[in-house]
Amino acid sequence: MFRHVPINQVEIWDPFFSARIAKARETAIPYMWDTLHDAVPGVAPSHCIENFRIAAGLAKGDFQGFCFQDSDLWKWLEGVGYALSVQSDEALEQQADSTIDLAAMAQQEDGYLDTYYIIKGLDQRFTNLKDIHELYVAGHMFEAACAYYQATGKRKVLDVACRFADCLCKHFGPGENQLHGYPGHEEVEMGLTRLYAVTGEKKYLDLALYFLNERGQKPYYYDKERLARGEKLHEKRENFWDDYGYYQADVPVREQTAARGHAVRQLYLLAGMAEAGTAAGDDILVEAAERVFRNVIDKQMYITGGVGSTHVGEAFSFDYDLPPDRCYTETCASIALIMTAIRLHRAHPHGLYGDIVEKALYNGILSGVSLDGMKYFYMNPLETWPERCERRNDIRIDDERKGWFGCACCPPNVLRTLMGLSMYLFTENDTHLYIDQYVSSHVRSGETELKIQSAFPYWGNKVTIHVERAGEKELALRIPGWAKKNYVLEINGEEVEHDPWNQYEYVNNLKDGDVITLTFPVMEVRKIRAHGHIPEYAGKVALMMGPVVYCLEEKDNGNELWNLSLTDGLVTPVLAQEELEGVMMLQAEGIRDCGGDSLYSEEEPKQEKQTLIFVPYYAWGNRGKGEMRVWIRRT
Amino acid sequence: MFRHVPINQVEIWDPFFSARIAKARETAIPYMWDTLHDAVPGVAPSHCIENFRIAAGLAKGDFQGFCFQDSDLWKWLEGVGYALSVQSDEALEQQADSTIDLAAMAQQEDGYLDTYYIIKGLDQRFTNLKDIHELYVAGHMFEAACAYYQATGKRKVLDVACRFADCLCKHFGPGENQLHGYPGHEEVEMGLTRLYAVTGEKKYLDLALYFLNERGQKPYYYDKERLARGEKLHEKRENFWDDYGYYQADVPVREQTAARGHAVRQLYLLAGMAEAGTAAGDDILVEAAERVFRNVIDKQMYITGGVGSTHVGEAFSFDYDLPPDRCYTETCASIALIMTAIRLHRAHPHGLYGDIVEKALYNGILSGVSLDGMKYFYMNPLETWPERCERRNDIRIDDERKGWFGCACCPPNVLRTLMGLSMYLFTENDTHLYIDQYVSSHVRSGETELKIQSAFPYWGNKVTIHVERAGEKELALRIPGWAKKNYVLEINGEEVEHDPWNQYEYVNNLKDGDVITLTFPVMEVRKIRAHGHIPEYAGKVALMMGPVVYCLEEKDNGNELWNLSLTDGLVTPVLAQEELEGVMMLQAEGIRDCGGDSLYSEEEPKQEKQTLIFVPYYAWGNRGKGEMRVWIRRT
Repeated sequence: MFRHVPINQVEIWDPFFSARIAKARETAIPYMWDTLHDAVPGVAPSHCIENFRIAAGLAKGDFQGFCFQDSDLWKWLEGVGYALSVQSDEALEQQADSTIDLAAMAQQEDGYLDTYYIIKGLDQRFTNLKDIHELYVAGHMFEAACAYYQATGKRKVLDVACRFADCLCKHFGPGENQLHGYPGHEEVEMGLTRLYAVTGEKKYLDLALYFLNERGQKPYYYDKERLARGEKLHEKRENFWDDYGYYQADVPVREQTAARGHAVRQLYLLAGMAEAGTAAGDDILVEAAERVFRNVIDKQMYITGGVGSTHVGEAFSFDYDLPPDRCYTETCASIALIMTAIRLHRAHPHGLYGDIVEKALYNGILSGVSLDGMKYFYMNPLETWPERCERRNDIRIDDERKGWFGCACCPPNVLRTLMGLSMYLFTENDTHLYIDQYVSSHVRSGETELKIQSAFPYWGNKVTIHVERAGEKELALRIPGWAKKNYVLEINGEEVEHDPWNQYEYVNNLKDGDVITLTFPVMEVRKIRAHGHIPEYAGKVALMMGPVVYCLEEKDNGNELWNLSLTDGLVTPVLAQEELEGVMMLQAEGIRDCGGDSLYSEEEPKQEKQTLIFVPYYAWGNRGKGEMRVWIRRT
Repeated sequence: MFRHVPINQVEIWDPFFSARIAKARETAIPYMWDTLHDAVPGVAPSHCIENFRIAAGLAKGDFQGFCFQDSDLWKWLEGVGYALSVQSDEALEQQADSTIDLAAMAQQEDGYLDTYYIIKGLDQRFTNLKDIHELYVAGHMFEAACAYYQATGKRKVLDVACRFADCLCKHFGPGENQLHGYPGHEEVEMGLTRLYAVTGEKKYLDLALYFLNERGQKPYYYDKERLARGEKLHEKRENFWDDYGYYQADVPVREQTAARGHAVRQLYLLAGMAEAGTAAGDDILVEAAERVFRNVIDKQMYITGGVGSTHVGEAFSFDYDLPPDRCYTETCASIALIMTAIRLHRAHPHGLYGDIVEKALYNGILSGVSLDGMKYFYMNPLETWPERCERRNDIRIDDERKGWFGCACCPPNVLRTLMGLSMYLFTENDTHLYIDQYVSSHVRSGETELKIQSAFPYWGNKVTIHVERAGEKELALRIPGWAKKNYVLEINGEEVEHDPWNQYEYVNNLKDGDVITLTFPVMEVRKIRAHGHIPEYAGKVALMMGPVVYCLEEKDNGNELWNLSLTDGLVTPVLAQEELEGVMMLQAEGIRDCGGDSLYSEEEPKQEKQTLIFVPYYAWGNRGKGEMRVWIRRT
């Protein structure tokens, strides 16, 4: 069985990621701690910790915030767990312990722990699984508990989690006196499976599988709980949230074929299916997840790894509906995409999954965070026109990153992803070590120890793997899809013939001191076309170099970016000297159409040559407000 | 002072319009009569007549429908008035008389007549001018009454209207015991001015001016009436309807510079300002209307004469925001556009206004009605992809015309426009007769009588004007903007030198039997570019021939129209043999991009030659569901 290499066995010192991780550690963790405690002036109070204090009897007041407000704390704690796995920090650990103490005080006799119902009335708990996210919150708590326990060895939060999980096991299941329901927002399936992996308690895995298998069975549980609350069933399903497809709950999960509904839910479901299915040896469940995942990446994914084509329901829409300026492409959804990809990879290793992780990491996820690590995009569009963002009511995208959100799901999600980055880099089992991403690091898998030097995504074309201790493992080295056959594999300076299998080159019989190098065409700029089914990209290209998607910004190219087109000439990488922290820009010859003053006329626009400057998509929006676009017309 | 030539002095026998007018007379008038009487199976009951019956004490029940439901009857009656002006129809007149009798019975002692408040409680009337459209309904009633009175000479409906107008004069005005308000939806300004023109009662004009002058003054009347109803003022204006700009009521009308808010309201306001301003000799008011109108046609109008760029509030958005697939472009708004244009023309004659009337008539208005005259588009987008219309919740456009609408404003609005078409064709004063549109007809203006033969928009390039009786009038012949200088004016076979003034050629000293001909480049296809400020049309063209805008339909060109582009070659008009009732199609050489199977790839799309077929935009959507687009990429 494949698993990620434990976080504390990986040390990252990467030119691209290390600074981001350090910023997250040094600024995002304390900043989020402060927001959770309502201590950031100018940011609307989260009330998250206050809810716990009220639930614990330490304060008086009403519950405030979203019904899933607790999850902000748990996501923070999960990120802290990963941070402490790599580097100890006594003060931070004390902060974390204090919140765990608080949560333990809020926990009920029977193990229940969700401040929403503890404050609002426990008699209502489990009566609205569809809309009130107590199982979703539980899932985040289980993940946080596992992460923190694994980091610190302290059992307290794990015990809290197990008590809550036991409570769920008592209330949910096939028994006559149990509830036969499942969460409206998936997440707990992953959390329970992880809790099973850490504790060995099989009933947690069973409950995860129970939730998955019940989902979408008829008669619908959501109808039953609705009737049980004394409400009528919908005659017509007029709103997106009346349609159980929005919750991936209209059809049993094993029969689902395409991504539908709320994007994060859909992908958390797939990740849960992959993780629980793998743990249980349930191939059919894993294959069902693979099938829907293929639909996402083949037909419903933006070139940036963004997913969710509509803000209405933060949702998938339909195949090839990928408008650049009306997408939702929530940062969290791209994170959910790589959570799914890496779990499917662990089920059936294939370089394709690493391609998706790489694409989302270097584009649609990091675009969610400003270069200084302090501001966030909730949505990651591929095209913005600030005036339209501000003045059209049917456009819901922000044209500037914000410090925090009322629904603060993305910032802590980015935090836990960066802090737990190594889980996306290395996959191991008892015989193999997969290097899934080329990030400069030191890794230990069993007796095998490697030092990896990389200047990805674009500062160097060579990856060097120093075998510090050979151990027993066979190495598997991912060949990114964009490298095609244009790579060179050398072992101790000798070129080795290509022999990839599922996009991995395998290297065995390692010896201490071996040096393996991979040379990739990282500086080759590619002009990418989109599928002909997508209206918006007809006649246009997007530029990519390695995994990095590029975009035009007003700052470098003037406004009305839509009037620019790309000529057939060379595109040249140019290292930015000062701006944008040394990113690799691209420079190309282009043309600007300059029209007249009439709204409509027969006049041919004058065409002027213009040098176009492209910046990496992940780095856009760091120099003030302005237009941006990824897809550009070609002449 | 300029006015339209009275309807009963114009006889239309035009190859383009006569069949449409006949269909409206023969099918739409009886169909609408039936819908008003809830007698069309499968169409949701209008309840319009039933509301009048309840208000008149002839039936029991509650008011049903929109608060402005009465206006459907009045718009129908206005259309009937125009129809009867041209051609008598005893049965139709009896139907109309019966509704007038009913309305008279519903009218209150004091003249009040709006079934909404008569049924729901008269104590509430005039308490919510902003949202409840009783003044809007009154305006439509006044217009209907004038039209019907002028057609039949029967005073009954005029008396009903005057009694209601007297009631309004009593309640509204500067007096201490009067209300200082104005309508949330403009229309009554036009209605009152027309009632003044017909009756000579100056107080009606004064009230129209009062409404116009009070509009947008501070402190806001809408705030006052809100407080008077015991409601709180908005702290924040979160919804579009909380913003008084939506009602053009945030700033006094004389200070307004750009079109804002609900498109029909904005344009009815301008039309009212033009009409009342002209009647009162108030040039400043007329100029204010002209200023905002210029903003519309220079910066906020679609190439089809459609207006209203967003469905949110059915509204204008901002300058150069003209997306083809997210527009509202309500049929009614294009009608309101020509209502404004013709009134501004009567204030200060200029061929530009005729250009706008022509553009909207031959495109964005007639696109609202199917060729068989039985089905309607409420919205007239410039681009549709049926799958997206059906599956994206943020797209609100229909991909097929419908029989009727719950909010049935457009069908009767088209009806009254077609029935009163001649008002848009000829403008007269005591010395001049302006021929604003070239529609085959016979017209009498004073002692002057002309027979006009035209095959507009594209069946012939010659307009012939036979002077049957010379009379005293000087003729003014509009030179359409699209003709530029490429026209020939001949009088009795002798070419006359160009000497246009404000896009009109003037011909005086007419003699009986004179023959004037104008030859226009009607078959010259123009490739139109849009202003560079509009993102969606960069690199694209739209084809026009004369005033007619063309579009591609899936039916003729296959699907994925976005993959088509137009080459530089000739575009050839082709007369349709059977389809679409003999329209002139256009044929051009184009290219189709045929891509591969990948969502994103480096593969160059294969390019295949394809003959492109364009049909007039007004004729789209008459051959089943399918894609359509006006703007096409050029190679």
